[in-house]
Formats: sequence, C-alpha cells, structure tokens
Amino acid sequence: MSNPLNLDIFFHPKSIAVVGTPSETPKGKWPGMYGCIVENGYTGTLYPINPKATEVGSRKAYPNLTSLPVVADLVILSVPAPFVPDILRECAATGHKNIHIFTAGFKETGEPEGLQLQEEIETIAREHELRVIGPNCMGVFVPKIKMATWVDPPDAIGRVAFLSQSGGHAQDFTNYGAKLGLGYSKVVSYGNALTLDAPDFLEYLAEDPDTDIIAMYLEGASDGRRLLETVRKVNQLKPVVILKAGLTESGTRAVASHTGSLAGKTHIWDAFFRQTGAIQVQSLQEMAHTVLALQHFKTAEGNGVAVLGVGGGVGVEAADACSRAGLGLPDLSDSVRQKLREYVGPAGNMIRNPIDAFVILLDFGLLSKTLDIISAEACFDMFILSIHLDWLFDIDAGAHLPRMTEYLIKTAHRHLNGKPLAVCWRTLRQNPKIEKQGLQFEKALLAAGIPVYRDLNQTAGALSRFTAYHQLKKQLCN
Amino acid sequence: MSNPLNLDIFFHPKSIAVVGTPSETPKGKWPGMYGCIVENGYTGTLYPINPKATEVGSRKAYPNLTSLPVVADLVILSVPAPFVPDILRECAATGHKNIHIFTAGFKETGEPEGLQLQEEIETIAREHELRVIGPNCMGVFVPKIKMATWVDPPDAIGRVAFLSQSGGHAQDFTNYGAKLGLGYSKVVSYGNALTLDAPDFLEYLAEDPDTDIIAMYLEGASDGRRLLETVRKVNQLKPVVILKAGLTESGTRAVASHTGSLAGKTHIWDAFFRQTGAIQVQSLQEMAHTVLALQHFKTAEGNGVAVLGVGGGVGVEAADACSRAGLGLPDLSDSVRQKLREYVGPAGNMIRNPIDAFVILLDFGLLSKTLDIISAEACFDMFILSIHLDWLFDIDAGAHLPRMTEYLIKTAHRHLNGKPLAVCWRTLRQNPKIEKQGLQFEKALLAAGIPVYRDLNQTAGALSRFTAYHQLKKQLCN
Repeated sequence: MSNPLNLDIFFHPKSIAVVGTPSETPKGKWPGMYGCIVENGYTGTLYPINPKATEVGSRKAYPNLTSLPVVADLVILSVPAPFVPDILRECAATGHKNIHIFTAGFKETGEPEGLQLQEEIETIAREHELRVIGPNCMGVFVPKIKMATWVDPPDAIGRVAFLSQSGGHAQDFTNYGAKLGLGYSKVVSYGNALTLDAPDFLEYLAEDPDTDIIAMYLEGASDGRRLLETVRKVNQLKPVVILKAGLTESGTRAVASHTGSLAGKTHIWDAFFRQTGAIQVQSLQEMAHTVLALQHFKTAEGNGVAVLGVGGGVGVEAADACSRAGLGLPDLSDSVRQKLREYVGPAGNMIRNPIDAFVILLDFGLLSKTLDIISAEACFDMFILSIHLDWLFDIDAGAHLPRMTEYLIKTAHRHLNGKPLAVCWRTLRQNPKIEKQGLQFEKALLAAGIPVYRDLNQTAGALSRFTAYHQLKKQLCN
Repeated sequence: MSNPLNLDIFFHPKSIAVVGTPSETPKGKWPGMYGCIVENGYTGTLYPINPKATEVGSRKAYPNLTSLPVVADLVILSVPAPFVPDILRECAATGHKNIHIFTAGFKETGEPEGLQLQEEIETIAREHELRVIGPNCMGVFVPKIKMATWVDPPDAIGRVAFLSQSGGHAQDFTNYGAKLGLGYSKVVSYGNALTLDAPDFLEYLAEDPDTDIIAMYLEGASDGRRLLETVRKVNQLKPVVILKAGLTESGTRAVASHTGSLAGKTHIWDAFFRQTGAIQVQSLQEMAHTVLALQHFKTAEGNGVAVLGVGGGVGVEAADACSRAGLGLPDLSDSVRQKLREYVGPAGNMIRNPIDAFVILLDFGLLSKTLDIISAEACFDMFILSIHLDWLFDIDAGAHLPRMTEYLIKTAHRHLNGKPLAVCWRTLRQNPKIEKQGLQFEKALLAAGIPVYRDLNQTAGALSRFTAYHQLKKQLCN
C-alpha cells in the first residue's frame, strides 16, 4: 500500500498558521481554533493571522499568509465561508499545501450559495493540488504532540486511530474511550471531505507505526468502490471498526444536512461489511467497547462463552444477552456439573451456564478451581465474570471487592488456560461508596489489561464483534 | 374484575412471623430476612421463630408457629428446603394462610430431591388453600409501610407496581427507577410461583388505588391463557410493561434453572404482546425509561417527533435513533424553515429535523419562539431536547445550564402547545463538575415532571413505546 499523499505532515506539523484568529480570546465563550491549540499546549510554532492585529497573546500576528516568514506546515482556515476561496488561492500562491478548513457553510447547508462555494473551493483545491481536510470539521487531534482544536481533549496517548466525519463525535468518542483506558495515535475530523477522504487517511494509518486499531465514524463516501477496496485491504492488517450513520430514512436526510454526504442504502452497506470484514457498530459506545476487546484480546478460537456470577435474574439476562449477540453459551457437561456440585449446593445457585453461585465469588480458591475446570473444556473459548457490586459490597464491610480486584489482576490469568476473560459490573443502589469502589475496581482492571464493561449487552456485543472479526478475517484471507 | 384471593393482607401485614430467624444477626454478612425487615424499619409486630432462642434482638422469640399468641398476618419461611413441608403443615394447622417462602432448592434445581419437594409443598398448599408467594424469592416490598426483605431498598413511595420472578431484579429495578424519580406502591418477587402467580397479583393491582402503572419481569407462566386474558383486561385500565426473559435458546435454559419456569417460544410471546397491548421491553433500564414516560405524559396524538439540540453528529444519531425506534421524524415544512432561517444562519447549523442550532440553546427567547413555531404544526406530536453538556458547560463559566434548568421548568411548557417534551443529556468529558451539574439538572427536571434520559436510543425507545401503547390500546378497545 502506498502513501502518495504524504499525510504525515498533518499529524506532526512543526508550524501552524491559523487564518481568522481573533485579536483576543473571547471570555466565557468558545476560544476558537487558535485559542484551543494554545490552551492544549501545542509545542510547535504558531502563526496567528489577523489583518488588523500585530500581536495575539504573546505571539506576533501576521496580516495574511503572504507576509509569513516561512511556509507553515499546516494552515487552518477559520473565517466566514465567503472568504475561503480567496484564502485558498493565497495558499496556492504561497506554497501552502496542507490545509484544514474549519469553516462551515458549504454543501451541507443545501442552500445555493453554499453549494456554489463548495464547487468553487473544490476547483481551486484540485487545480493547485491542495491537500484539504474539511471543510466543516475540527481537523486533527494528536495527543502525543498536544495538538487539538477543541476544549479539554483527553490526555490519552495510545494506539487507536479515529476517523470521523463529525467533530462532535471525535470529541465524544475520544472522551468516552479515555474513560475505558483507550489512548489515541491520530484522530481526524474531516467533515465534508473535499479532497481528502476516508480512503486517504486509511492508507496512511495502515502504514502508521503508532496505530494498531482504526475506528471510523462514516456518514457517506464519495467513491464507494475505492472505500470498499481500501477497507478490505487495511482490515487484514489492522481491525477497522465502523459506525456507519444515516442508515435510516431520517438519518439519510440528517447526514445530507450535516456533511452534505450521500448516506447510501442499507443493503449496500450490509454487503460492504460482508465483503470488507470490517466490524460494524451502532453507536460510539459500542465502538469503544469493541475496540477495548480488540486491544486486550489477541484472538479467540470460537465464540463459546462461560458466564460466572451471582444472581439468577442476572444469569438469565446474561444468557439472553449472549444469545442475542450471537455468542454460543454451551451448557456444562455432566462431568463438569458433577465437579462443581462438590462445592456448590443446588439451593439458591444455578449450576448451568451461566453459573450463579455466590460461594465461588466469596472464596477465591473455589473461583480458581472453577476457572480451571471450565477453561480445560474445548467448547469454552472465553469467560464473562459478572459482578454485582450491590451484593458483594457489604461482605466484610467493603473489604471483599479490593481482594477480588487483586485476585483478578494477579491470579486469575493462571487459571484461564490462555482464554480471554472480560468483567461486567453493576451497581444500582444509591450508595456513592459502592459507585466509588466500582470505579476503582474498573480502573485497576483496565490498567491490568482486563476489559471491563458495565452492562451485559455491552459485554456480549463486544466479545461477539471481536470473535466475528477474527473469523471473518480468516475467511476473507483464504 | 374480582379479587377473590384478598391479597391485600400481604401488602399491609400488621404482624409477621419469620420462621428460621437466627438468634443473632451475623456480622459483615447478609442479615437474613428477619434482619432486613428490622433494619428497614417495618412498624408492625414481628415474631422471630427459632426453636432454640428465647429472644432475638429485643424481641421475644417463639419456638414455632404453634406457640404464637396470635395468628400472624404473614409468615415468612427462611429454613432449609427439607423443613418447608412440615412448616407448611404447621401453618395450615395454626390458621396461617398467607405465606412467603424465601427458601430455594425446589423445582429450579432440576434435581430429583428439589422436584419432589416442590410437588410435596404444592400439594399441601392446595389442600389447605394456603396463599403462597414463592418459593425461591424475596417476597414483598412496600415502601409506604417500610416493609422490605433486602438490604438498602430505596425510600421511594409512588404509584408504580413491580411484579418480578427474580428477587435480584426487584432490587435492581427499584433502585434504578428511584434514581429516575420513580416511586413504588407494591413490589413482589414471587420466584417459582407455587400457588400465587402473575395473574393473581395483576388482578389485585388492577383494583389497587395506590397503583397507576404495572411493570413485570416474567420468566414463564403456568397458565398462559389466563395470563393473556388478565394482562389484556388490566392493560386497558393501567399500562402493563413486561420484560419477558428467556426468549433465546440459552435464556430458556437459564430460566428453567432459575425459577423452574417454561420460557415459551418467541412467536407465542410476540402474539401475546400483540393481543394484550402490553408494552414489551428488553431490559430493566428500558422498563424504567418507559415507565418514566408513561408516568409523566398523559397521551400523544401520533408518533411525530421534533428534535432540537446542538451537534451535527448528535443530530444524525438522533435521526437514526428515532427511525430505528419507529418514531416519525417529519421534515420541517418550507414555511417553518423560512421562519427559523430568520434567526438561524445556515453555516454550522442544521435547519431540518433534527434542528442543530447552538443559538437556540443560548437564547431562551429564540428557544421559545422555535417551540411556538414547531408545536403549532400538526405533524409534530412531541419534542426531544438534546443537551450536550460538554459544549454548554463552558458558556458563561458554568452559569448557563442552571438558567436553562429554570427555563425548562418554568417557561418551556407555555410554548409546547400541550405536547410532551423529553430531555436527553450527555457528558463525556472527564470533568467531575460537568457531571455534577448534569445530575442536578436531571434531578430538577425529573422533580418538575419532565422525563430525562442520558442516551438518544433510550429516549427514542421510551417515547416510541409510550405512543405505541396508547395507539394499540385504542385499537384493542374498539
């Protein structure tokens, strides 16, 4: 795979010029592109461009790109839409090739003026071979170099890339994922996709040594065939997880109004996912949960899950969730049941799969024994441990859960026979202490590389998509 | 509808005997049935039954039911399963008719001993016309009389009843719902449903003056025809919301193992919901969200929603969520668009449905104007207001959201033309101040009778089920 566009400079710009920098950062309002880049601690050289100011903050301001002492690695346009064509021409004249147009008011408005403006800037960009991210987008976020154009991005460096046609979703996904311990290599909000589109970024990320997993929020594709071919290739190298929006009638209309994209029909996208092997998700949360499983689990042989936990209703819920997600939930064999029956009484417990047995969660020796017995069975490929904090919290006045945390981090993996284990926890009681302990539990497990979820549907869904990815990848490879 | 079983005494017992009360409450462990009832502040008379103790806590203990000075209104059995038949015989001999069997270890074990024990106790109960809740369940929770058999129930009196075959779910649902401001009239965890089954409780609740809405967690039904007839009748009087578990292959097996129930086939239950008009939900959370809409909204003419908010990606998400949930999302007419266009610019906004326009959320005069314009249109039956706290929080250094809270509580309803408005909020940023303000916002709105959700799928799902209920009810009534 080639990378003819040399996009690297977008992600490591040594200098950035921001055209349309206000002379002062407005108080109590959104600080704007330039203000955000400063606040977030970008360490390269910044050139504020403002025709009326000589200084912005402590930095020298320039009236235009022509007056800059150098050619900036990246130019950001944050001016009203009618000014954009002339500034693009100035970019071309001054040798600025890498451009992020933040400005909105183009094709997505559906109004004649916006449509005409988008045509005009597309012509300029193609004629002068400008590399344009946008318009109508937030541009690039690279935690490693503290480069971000919005307020309060997460300080989360890692190996997940995110391509998003929505700037808001770029913020929401990176914030949500950061709470699950995800970190990011490169994030791009690319809006209307004037010249640079998803396939261009995918080709770049496929070769990016900092990226292991690629997540995408997609509204439409200007060249569906190229997108399909690119995703199919890239997905063999690195998992590609896609939230395709606008697959409903109302969604199609909203997509046109948001980024001027053509959403496409459901059956076309169904074929797209079958043919590429990319992982389809329905929400940003599902995306983060799936990435979490992909990040921590290498591979699974099959989709058979054993669920351990406490609570009969919760066990039924787990069974329904696994079935609905397409996971297998093999029943325990008679010999396994007999082995468990030696230390689990029949009253108040379920010695099936899911296993509902308080005693196993209270006595870690028995938990290890149970994991040993089950992980030895070929039909089980992975584990879900379902933890109801509301019932475990009161044990030993709050001392049990920290012990379980330690057990799961230090000991459990020795009894899994190399099979993945995900943890799902819940608390519903109105007791802030339980919630606090739950968050500590979650944080410690995530730091130790154990995927943690808060809902059984989330858990089952993430594991199912993780296993489906590996199965489909093998099929498509053959 | 008659109520021949006179179940009222279960919900207002003046005296309770707990057979199998330990002489001391175990420290750092679950305090047991008796311990919980005491801790939760039940104000009636309690009779601890323990053959070896003369006193439990400060109360006189009795060796058995025969030695009690009175016939207790309710007897709770918390003894090992093999002792249950003899105690039931003692109940019959001493005139105790109202019995809750907490004890597990019967049909649900699938083991010969348990099956035989359940047959035995069923014979005794039928012969002596005992009214039995259980076995294998948590029994009754009535906030108004501080009667509960588990730890830390919510202090939430209200008009929602909950029938549950799972004791854990009775706890989880009431805890979760309480956070949304739901309160409860009567809650019953009835486990294996030996003699008293869902239809019995439904007939009682249909006539209960304290109950407006009935929620149910159902694993199986011993008499499907009777359940269908009862739900159909009751649902015309009070909405019945049902989480039917075990509708997957694995779920069916788990249900058998949990309460010994037959889950039944999916197509049978599909027909059940069509014929009864009851509202089907897939999780306890969905149940609470649906009950919230039913509680605060009286009725809706149709299912056309207008979505107002900020964020293009969020707008697309809202559109997809509404479409998937089966809600209509009529586009704005040209004349409405023209009216909005007078104060909403085309750049960075979506003047469609969903409407994405920051200015409308910043200026409450414009918000009122927008609500006036849209609520006057016949095609819109209700509103979703989508609030992204991460973007609103920084406005005026945190002062904007409290103003919006006040606006929504005091002013918005004057501009709705009597149409329902639900609010959906989110915060993803790792800023505890935003979360805190969000929770205050949520609490204030809920207290003012405005349903609040945290996810667009939740919101759309709840509104869709709410409108479908009213539509189906009308059809079935004709």
